[in-house]
Amino acid sequence: MITVIAGGVGAARMLRALLQVVDASDVTTIVNVGDDLVLHGLHISPDLDTVTYTLAGAINPETGWGLVNESWQARTMLEQYGGVSWFGLGDRDLGTHLYRTQRLREGADLATVTAEIAQAWNLGLTVLPATCDQLQTMVTLAADDPADADSPGLPAGTEISFQEYFVQRQHSVPISAVRFDGAEATTAAPGVLEAIETANLIVIAPSNPLVSIAPVLAVPGIREALIRRRSAVVAVSPIIAGAALKGPADRMLSELGHDASVLGVAALYKEFTNTLVIDSADAALQSDVEAFGLNCIVTETIMSQPGVSESLARTVLSGVSR
Amino acid sequence: MITVIAGGVGAARMLRALLQVVDASDVTTIVNVGDDLVLHGLHISPDLDTVTYTLAGAINPETGWGLVNESWQARTMLEQYGGVSWFGLGDRDLGTHLYRTQRLREGADLATVTAEIAQAWNLGLTVLPATCDQLQTMVTLAADDPADADSPGLPAGTEISFQEYFVQRQHSVPISAVRFDGAEATTAAPGVLEAIETANLIVIAPSNPLVSIAPVLAVPGIREALIRRRSAVVAVSPIIAGAALKGPADRMLSELGHDASVLGVAALYKEFTNTLVIDSADAALQSDVEAFGLNCIVTETIMSQPGVSESLARTVLSGVSR
Repeated sequence: MITVIAGGVGAARMLRALLQVVDASDVTTIVNVGDDLVLHGLHISPDLDTVTYTLAGAINPETGWGLVNESWQARTMLEQYGGVSWFGLGDRDLGTHLYRTQRLREGADLATVTAEIAQAWNLGLTVLPATCDQLQTMVTLAADDPADADSPGLPAGTEISFQEYFVQRQHSVPISAVRFDGAEATTAAPGVLEAIETANLIVIAPSNPLVSIAPVLAVPGIREALIRRRSAVVAVSPIIAGAALKGPADRMLSELGHDASVLGVAALYKEFTNTLVIDSADAALQSDVEAFGLNCIVTETIMSQPGVSESLARTVLSGVSR
Repeated sequence: MITVIAGGVGAARMLRALLQVVDASDVTTIVNVGDDLVLHGLHISPDLDTVTYTLAGAINPETGWGLVNESWQARTMLEQYGGVSWFGLGDRDLGTHLYRTQRLREGADLATVTAEIAQAWNLGLTVLPATCDQLQTMVTLAADDPADADSPGLPAGTEISFQEYFVQRQHSVPISAVRFDGAEATTAAPGVLEAIETANLIVIAPSNPLVSIAPVLAVPGIREALIRRRSAVVAVSPIIAGAALKGPADRMLSELGHDASVLGVAALYKEFTNTLVIDSADAALQSDVEAFGLNCIVTETIMSQPGVSESLARTVLSGVSR
């Protein structure tokens, strides 16, 4: 049994790689919901959807998010009204949000709805939100955000939601803090703690440590469960040669006082991680990672390269026994 | 200045006819919101949208509701999930609901959002919801509703919302009562009472008297304002030769103890209506209508027939002076 702690795009690719070499029924993923938002009254769960669509083979390969063969009629109409359109809602994707929102309004919890959606796509693995409760990742701007067509501009010190930072501002503003609003009042979704406690291997996917993995850990009980299972935890670094493959993880690490390198990842993860898998490009840092008290495996980790995803999956699976 | 009390399809066609012969800037319409529903978290205003889309020349001419050149990607996805899909939400139409819902969540009232949507379509006339407050048309089933794929079946006496009756059950169940839930606590939207008080002519469009016109009248102050302006009120009968052109108005009139004829309409409207326009097919009933204390004009009223809509509009405009 394998449990994967997941954010969005990087985690979805790691899961897809793992499913090349293990049976889906043996895999559970615990997915970040700190990026969730309510927009136009719809409950949107970007990381859950990215994982689901990727594993269903339905992800838009050009963007890494949203559905393939998507149309944009609703958004075109919304733009005609001058409505909020910075968050890209494709027509097919809207079907998912409509379904989730309706079910939540009927009283189903997010874990139930997530399972129904995974079932509809015949995913085979178990997809769990970290929590069914509200937990919202907030970031504090470190500099003034200039006004533009979508926004009147915001002064340094303003706290905004993750999607307002990540999508609306394309993470173009430096930040000074990250906070998981409401986290202390949440409880782990049904099955989450059990999936950590009973797994033979726990994988921390190559997702942003600060805004994809950390909000999962902020749910009371999850970090503690991982610490108890530390010997079974293998993390894959999302930072390669000081840079994130996608997204602002490297810049965020620097801005928040961490090393923007595998060493920064090692420092953040050492408490609950036994083994850190780093890219061959960082081979020179292996002993520095080990100095954090971690096993360190060096291998190819860029899953878009031919053959890498399957070999990375096999390396991760072997990681726990090294 | 002309003010039109409106439901959906029939009213939209009456408005379109009137705009052939008067300037849009001289027209205000007060539209039923008793059919509004929240579905999937979205605020949907079917009659407002039918009026808007029709006057924009964007209505689907085959159905009389929804947008022309519509696509159904979101609904197809929703059906894949087994979600609630009896209410047809096209992709373009969703853009309207997304915009309305977002603006309401931002604190705008329904009148403001309705004006913004009318402006985006360059309608020219003033479109007002009867109220910005919640008023929900409810119907009581007079017989058991059999179970089917969408519903577990409901016993006689159950009260359901208008759309559950009209769309989900295709108005196939007899009803024993209509009620406007919340009506007594509503106030007329800004401009509504003024539009009635200051109009030279007030038109009751050929809409369902019981579930399109009555919920407008149920907003405190509107019926009283119409009574005060009775001499300026011209109604167009939605019943022709005992039948509704579209929808269940004839059957509902019978089920609720009214005459399913122009006489039933006359009885319902006489308190606040000076002149009732009836179809030539009902010419024999003219004196019976007049016996209700109403002026009665007999003319062609089926607006889908060539030339009828403009001549009906001219007749309605002349009605007040007869």
